[in-house]
Amino acid sequence: MSQQTKFLLSEDRIPRSWYNIQADLPKPLPAVLHPGTLQPIGPADLEPLFPMELIMQEVSTEREIDIPDPVREVYKLWRPAPLFRAHRLEQALQTPAKIFYKYEGVSPAGSHKPNTAIPQAFYNKQAGVKRLTTETGAGQWGTSLSFAGSLFDIDVTVFQVRVSYDQKPYRRAVMETYGGRCVASPSNETAYGRKVLAERPDHPGSLGIAISEAVEIAATNPDTKYALGSVLNHVLMHQSIIGIESMEQMAMADVYPDVVVGCTGGGSNFAGIAFPFIGAGLRGGPKPRIVAVEPAACPSLTRGKYAYDFGDTGKMAPLTKMHTLGSSFTPPGFHAGGLRYHGMAPLVSHLKELGLMEAVAYQQTECFAAGVLFARAEGIVPAPEANHAVKGAIEEALRCKREGKSEVILFNLCGHGHFDMAAYTNYFSGNLVDEKYSEEELAMALAGLPSVPEAA
Amino acid sequence: MSQQTKFLLSEDRIPRSWYNIQADLPKPLPAVLHPGTLQPIGPADLEPLFPMELIMQEVSTEREIDIPDPVREVYKLWRPAPLFRAHRLEQALQTPAKIFYKYEGVSPAGSHKPNTAIPQAFYNKQAGVKRLTTETGAGQWGTSLSFAGSLFDIDVTVFQVRVSYDQKPYRRAVMETYGGRCVASPSNETAYGRKVLAERPDHPGSLGIAISEAVEIAATNPDTKYALGSVLNHVLMHQSIIGIESMEQMAMADVYPDVVVGCTGGGSNFAGIAFPFIGAGLRGGPKPRIVAVEPAACPSLTRGKYAYDFGDTGKMAPLTKMHTLGSSFTPPGFHAGGLRYHGMAPLVSHLKELGLMEAVAYQQTECFAAGVLFARAEGIVPAPEANHAVKGAIEEALRCKREGKSEVILFNLCGHGHFDMAAYTNYFSGNLVDEKYSEEELAMALAGLPSVPEAA
Repeated sequence: MSQQTKFLLSEDRIPRSWYNIQADLPKPLPAVLHPGTLQPIGPADLEPLFPMELIMQEVSTEREIDIPDPVREVYKLWRPAPLFRAHRLEQALQTPAKIFYKYEGVSPAGSHKPNTAIPQAFYNKQAGVKRLTTETGAGQWGTSLSFAGSLFDIDVTVFQVRVSYDQKPYRRAVMETYGGRCVASPSNETAYGRKVLAERPDHPGSLGIAISEAVEIAATNPDTKYALGSVLNHVLMHQSIIGIESMEQMAMADVYPDVVVGCTGGGSNFAGIAFPFIGAGLRGGPKPRIVAVEPAACPSLTRGKYAYDFGDTGKMAPLTKMHTLGSSFTPPGFHAGGLRYHGMAPLVSHLKELGLMEAVAYQQTECFAAGVLFARAEGIVPAPEANHAVKGAIEEALRCKREGKSEVILFNLCGHGHFDMAAYTNYFSGNLVDEKYSEEELAMALAGLPSVPEAA
Repeated sequence: MSQQTKFLLSEDRIPRSWYNIQADLPKPLPAVLHPGTLQPIGPADLEPLFPMELIMQEVSTEREIDIPDPVREVYKLWRPAPLFRAHRLEQALQTPAKIFYKYEGVSPAGSHKPNTAIPQAFYNKQAGVKRLTTETGAGQWGTSLSFAGSLFDIDVTVFQVRVSYDQKPYRRAVMETYGGRCVASPSNETAYGRKVLAERPDHPGSLGIAISEAVEIAATNPDTKYALGSVLNHVLMHQSIIGIESMEQMAMADVYPDVVVGCTGGGSNFAGIAFPFIGAGLRGGPKPRIVAVEPAACPSLTRGKYAYDFGDTGKMAPLTKMHTLGSSFTPPGFHAGGLRYHGMAPLVSHLKELGLMEAVAYQQTECFAAGVLFARAEGIVPAPEANHAVKGAIEEALRCKREGKSEVILFNLCGHGHFDMAAYTNYFSGNLVDEKYSEEELAMALAGLPSVPEAA
């Protein structure tokens, strides 16, 4: 009865380079536009916000970009992340499918986010930056950047959406443990925050507002830069180590996935596991189905428009072409805070338009049910975000059962739920309901998308 | 600059047997006494509480006891646990010492406790038991037994000390996620609980009371048995896999410890890392210093009396000879709930009496300071209990610095602090103070120790 459960790699197998899917795209990404002029921007336009190394990665079409040694040294604290065969979940589902999951919750911050926080802190430190600003919703990203800041000796200021700041004091405690400074957003520390508060002193905040505040501080202080935890090309590229490691581990298990599943908010953990497999397919290798799972309450891929839009509410960030619900859209307050973003990463959006992936949306209660089933079978309690991937994988496994197919399913378990147990408490007490957005508000937000010259 | 950080073992290296230090003791353990007669008891006396396999392990003097295959299969979900070299902590301390830590927080429950919860659930299931009762303070043990119950399909009822039940709803949510039923203790579900509540309806509870309630349910229901998370010989033996794996991993790093450090409450995680090394020394191998670190507010090893005492407040559990503060002693409400127990494991107490180990006590604020230093260097946020081991290891490393010695220090990081961030919040806000017990209460509790016939 002995069967292998974990597929481990020693730390010398941490990838030596990230994979950049821009090298393999059949059609290049649409240009990024300046928020003021709506004209395509060049690297220099991004310099107030990011160090040049990251800007060059953002626009690079090199297939492989070396991971600096100091970054690999830090990755050793938790990477390579384990790949598991979900024997007990398969049994519970009575499915002929073989289910594998990559577990990114082993990082100190508990999610995949440090995969990019570490190199971002490294490149900023190298460029002489003294302080990083960022935004966070649920807190995973703020925690990860605080952790990275503590290792590379950079001050970190985190604008946390006020509603999360108030509801999740423990997340703030983790950020403070790593030495990060956490500010409730909207705040009085920025002109944009003061403007929002003047209009509505009790504003609960949003990710879009917090981004505007963090960007403003970086743009107006020469020793300060901005760090984003998802959406951007270089962020998604840093996450590619998830998929690169998974490929090697799947080979150890002597299988190749038929289906790859990930949850999508901004797109980074999904891209991390999926892009290396999509890229291999584009270069002539096998082409697994690629399935993005998003929350039905914030369904940018399945209900958004593929159009140019601002990344933030204050319209200070550049415009990118993406699946968007409109930068003025406010998602309802469901529990997977990491998936509450109006837009989707331009690279993920582009691949969706090219027909290289699918997307599906689920309500939060069915995702929590999937997460509890998973925890009772496999032990790990998933983050509410990760529950969407669990749900997606379970649905694929049940389809295999109906169809009598023993397909190989791989999904990314992007983080644990240790800091989200209030959501599970709500779920068990029956207080967790499926949140719905207003169709009217969505229509308005989409109608308000910026007009962009057709050439772009 | 590349240096190895993690020492991993593949899952086929999970030990095939536990190590039983009773085989190597220079002098056998004192007898266990019946709570009613105060006479030595035999295996049959324990049958209402435990399945016979565990009772035989409790009294065995075999050096190695096979780990059943189904237990090893479950261990594969997280074991072997990683061993880390704390390069960054060494740098932060500027010490010539080499610091290693075994990290038990990788288990789904987040601590070392599943190492014994899994075999206990397995042996009970094998014996046809339908339900397990237990007590929990901070919640690590209740979480672990609930997890084990979900895997072996046994109902689990957890009596949680009321003050923790009220203060830590998230821990309860984890237990419920695994399907455990959590009851605030003292409760109306037992005669003893009703007695306590009749005397004081708002009683905050204690571990000793919760044990009495769990024991009562098991003793009075034929399909129900009791599970204890620490103190007992078989529990400590199950934890020996920590030290067995560590030995193999230290050999991979080409070192042997000069000092082994663990924190002690009931003694199980400490025994887990230390006993295999003590045993090797007793069989003629090298003899590292063995250091137990306990909370100054509940100092059984450094301030308790080595005497026969009850394990519970209701005096229903057998008497063992141990370092005890008296079963009527109520420790102050400091944050390392897992270390708030009036007694010490008989085996640990015995080894201390034989001069085979040392003990030291620290206050909680200095332990939190050590934990924050550790988190900023190594990433992992330790549990408040584990902070005591971190503090002990740091003190040893600073001694090495003063003495100019590059000794090898190994400590057990027995769990993460993800469910204890309220304690960190208190620490950062300056609201965490060093709790002191009353010397008068300690003297009274010690004066009230039971009189036991000298022969025992």
